[in-house]
Amino acid sequence: MTGDREPTRAALAALIDHTLLRPEATSAEVRDAVTVAIRFGCASVCVQPAMVPVAVESAVGRVPVCAVVGFPHGANLSETKAVEASGVVAQGAREVDMVADLSALADSDYSAVSSDVARVRAAVPHVVLKVILESALWNGAQLEAACDAALAGGADFVKTSTGFHPSGGASTAAVSLMSERVGGRARVKASGGIRDLSTAMEMIDAGASRLGLSATESILSELD
Amino acid sequence: MTGDREPTRAALAALIDHTLLRPEATSAEVRDAVTVAIRFGCASVCVQPAMVPVAVESAVGRVPVCAVVGFPHGANLSETKAVEASGVVAQGAREVDMVADLSALADSDYSAVSSDVARVRAAVPHVVLKVILESALWNGAQLEAACDAALAGGADFVKTSTGFHPSGGASTAAVSLMSERVGGRARVKASGGIRDLSTAMEMIDAGASRLGLSATESILSELD
Repeated sequence: MTGDREPTRAALAALIDHTLLRPEATSAEVRDAVTVAIRFGCASVCVQPAMVPVAVESAVGRVPVCAVVGFPHGANLSETKAVEASGVVAQGAREVDMVADLSALADSDYSAVSSDVARVRAAVPHVVLKVILESALWNGAQLEAACDAALAGGADFVKTSTGFHPSGGASTAAVSLMSERVGGRARVKASGGIRDLSTAMEMIDAGASRLGLSATESILSELD
Repeated sequence: MTGDREPTRAALAALIDHTLLRPEATSAEVRDAVTVAIRFGCASVCVQPAMVPVAVESAVGRVPVCAVVGFPHGANLSETKAVEASGVVAQGAREVDMVADLSALADSDYSAVSSDVARVRAAVPHVVLKVILESALWNGAQLEAACDAALAGGADFVKTSTGFHPSGGASTAAVSLMSERVGGRARVKASGGIRDLSTAMEMIDAGASRLGLSATESILSELD
């Protein structure tokens, strides 16, 4: 999808987790988000745990539901994250985006980071597991170590950002570094602040194979 | 504590939940927060779940540890909040500040709000339970209904804000309304944006009997 030519709408939509995570979103807004994700053929619709039942009912199998876990702070006991992951999967979620233990990352306690991920991995062995690192908080060496810890815990994806932290969202530098670090062992999801087509394409060119964003309609309309 | 005379340092400190909730706080920062809370005689030290073990060990019984639950979005399955509350209390927390289901509030589904609170109340029947309503999101009638739902679920306190929502923190108008609504049946904690003595005193005059804030040292130093 690199180079001069624009992707097709369908090809780009297939990389997007269409995302609605405002904590005060109404059920009607969640249903609308599901409708958008189905209409464009998104990879998933990404919602809060409490909204999984509404999203699953509304999706009727036409788009996978992705749920966040330990979101957005990641500062939960590992047991809580594991129970939350089991709960959303029992409710029908097929992907889980968990936030890593950011304090453990700040403490450079990478074994705590990986065991936290491993607890969630063990709780939901059969779904896609993405681990959010809040990449804007860390320097290059820290971010590489965070990627390693997420992989050691069993992550399928490393993901840049929650979109709620004041440090900011995805950067092409972080996506490049994460992509290089995880190599073929995992994939990279870019999220946080992706609001136009050019930013979306930059993230893909940097190595992201999934994008988390809310501006799906407006970004895809730029391809018309 | 109203009127012209300033409170004593100890009297004001006894109303403060000294708070450190940055998700990337280090263990050392948590220990420092505990030290401050002990030194001034705060009501509690308020931390993230993952930091409860460090805080409890550091507090050695000299200050109660308060843990947040479902924080800061409140958008978890009720089961998750209940497990998290049980977990932090098992680790030694003596107060729990849970975030209400903000989407259920937005949907005016007050029975869902109260049953969510009741699940946590049942999980931790013997600790102080505060329910965060994110007051800046709601109009007066909505905020009154939110207070009623929190009380119906078994809240000991209604609390204004997480301090992380873009809608803002505590206002004296919200504290007055909440205080009037709950009457003698519960107490009010004001939190979010309380960074100086005059704001702290305004919240107390409006009816708050607990303050959540991080600027404990600088506020108390204004009394010197």
